[in-house]
Amino acid sequence: MSAAAQVQADLDRLLPLLDALLTTPFREGEAARLGEAMRYSLEAGGKRVRPILCLLAAEAVGGTAAQALPGALALEYIHTYSLIHDDLPAMDDDDLRRGRPTNHKVYGEGHAILAGDGLLTEAFGVLATADLDPVRRAQALALLAEGAGWRGMVGGQALDLEGETLAAYDLDHLRLIHRLKTGALLRTSLEIGAVLGGAAPEEQAALRAYGEAIGLAFQIQDDILDATATEADLGKRAGKDAGRGKITYPSLLGLDGARNALSEATETALCHLASLPNRSSLAAWARYLAQRAK
Amino acid sequence: MSAAAQVQADLDRLLPLLDALLTTPFREGEAARLGEAMRYSLEAGGKRVRPILCLLAAEAVGGTAAQALPGALALEYIHTYSLIHDDLPAMDDDDLRRGRPTNHKVYGEGHAILAGDGLLTEAFGVLATADLDPVRRAQALALLAEGAGWRGMVGGQALDLEGETLAAYDLDHLRLIHRLKTGALLRTSLEIGAVLGGAAPEEQAALRAYGEAIGLAFQIQDDILDATATEADLGKRAGKDAGRGKITYPSLLGLDGARNALSEATETALCHLASLPNRSSLAAWARYLAQRAK
Repeated sequence: MSAAAQVQADLDRLLPLLDALLTTPFREGEAARLGEAMRYSLEAGGKRVRPILCLLAAEAVGGTAAQALPGALALEYIHTYSLIHDDLPAMDDDDLRRGRPTNHKVYGEGHAILAGDGLLTEAFGVLATADLDPVRRAQALALLAEGAGWRGMVGGQALDLEGETLAAYDLDHLRLIHRLKTGALLRTSLEIGAVLGGAAPEEQAALRAYGEAIGLAFQIQDDILDATATEADLGKRAGKDAGRGKITYPSLLGLDGARNALSEATETALCHLASLPNRSSLAAWARYLAQRAK
Repeated sequence: MSAAAQVQADLDRLLPLLDALLTTPFREGEAARLGEAMRYSLEAGGKRVRPILCLLAAEAVGGTAAQALPGALALEYIHTYSLIHDDLPAMDDDDLRRGRPTNHKVYGEGHAILAGDGLLTEAFGVLATADLDPVRRAQALALLAEGAGWRGMVGGQALDLEGETLAAYDLDHLRLIHRLKTGALLRTSLEIGAVLGGAAPEEQAALRAYGEAIGLAFQIQDDILDATATEADLGKRAGKDAGRGKITYPSLLGLDGARNALSEATETALCHLASLPNRSSLAAWARYLAQRAK
């Protein structure tokens, strides 16, 4: 089966599990408009990369997707909140996301800030209240706080904001930002899936390393797409990064250099899967993420 | 001992426990400026009402303050993040907080949003990683997510934002907003302390009811202070609520009516303590909060 066909088969199998529960916590409540704002961004679609990788990580170590489902939901809540906050005028100032108006354009800045806060809080709520083994629950919660917090995603976003005014900005600094901003949550997705699926310590370490490598690949490909794609392809403003003079992998390495770095990161990811019992799906995702057109 | 003397004795005893650990998670990290922004707001002082009540709740049911310390830290991180986000231009748009420039005036709006996100995330991190009984840990995390989330504090903040444009706005709606915006986290502070201190279910319920009552009292007193105090008293702009035509307890009930409601809420809080073994400190706090001058 091709990588794309394997990915599609996994999506067909796993997305219904996610979609059945994703907006459930945000349906009935006194703050109805805030609930609507949170559902708006959750229902905007997107690739659901992080929760799907979480579910596949559980399967890769011999567990089930059902065991990792609370973690998968938590990861999508974190990712969605981060997009809402990143799109705010004080941050990236984006009007479009996935081809639709961004949350603050529809609900106002105040509600967009609060919708992000509510999703972030519920990410921990869903893990705290799910029927989970207590040791695995605590590990998953700790991993989520570390990957999403100021030593992970939030810290990367801060460094990225500061980077726009930095005079010196080299490849090491770009890697640091992406390791935190994008890489930390992807890596955490794999680790949480591993923990909830009952991974042995060395399996968790392998999935962590796989997650770091595909996190790097994902960001390089994102930069390549931004440099080469059109607005219709991306569903958001294209060439935005270059337009504001932002440093990217193509701007530092050239387009060919960036493509080489992408291949290397993908190979590294595949190597780390070698010892896992059920690795075919995660291998297909590594190849698919490097080839994706948007 | 007078209520004020009892409160001071508890503060002298418990604040050092908190202060020794409060900024520890935010000291060393790659996003140094973000860490500084988080510490800036944590170190702005404030009354530490929520964490102190959490520690006292643990003691009130026969547990120790040390058992509840991770919960107390988590509550102060949540409270501090909520102040940072509330002060943003898209929300209450405040330049001063506790007599100092607000977070976004010092670090910029982007970093203030991220500092809030980082503190919110660490609140769950400190509970996830502390050495706690697994059942109590899960209960405390679930209580925190509920009290701080869109069915609690964040939802109240959204309703408060929407309220500024509402035509009809009565006492019931004001109570709903405050039950969520201020009350939920105060109530949660008591419940988390109860759970981590090993409370029996009926003790937890009593402390929840006490927390709801002092939450109401706290908000009424806040409104009374805003209507009567000067800027120097409060360390923030005084008369702000009335100035923008915001509905408050004094504006709905008159100043005397608001003072009566405050006394009633305080009496209710004291009644709920009747069955607890060590209730003198929490009783003193209920009286103190109703009398406080700022």
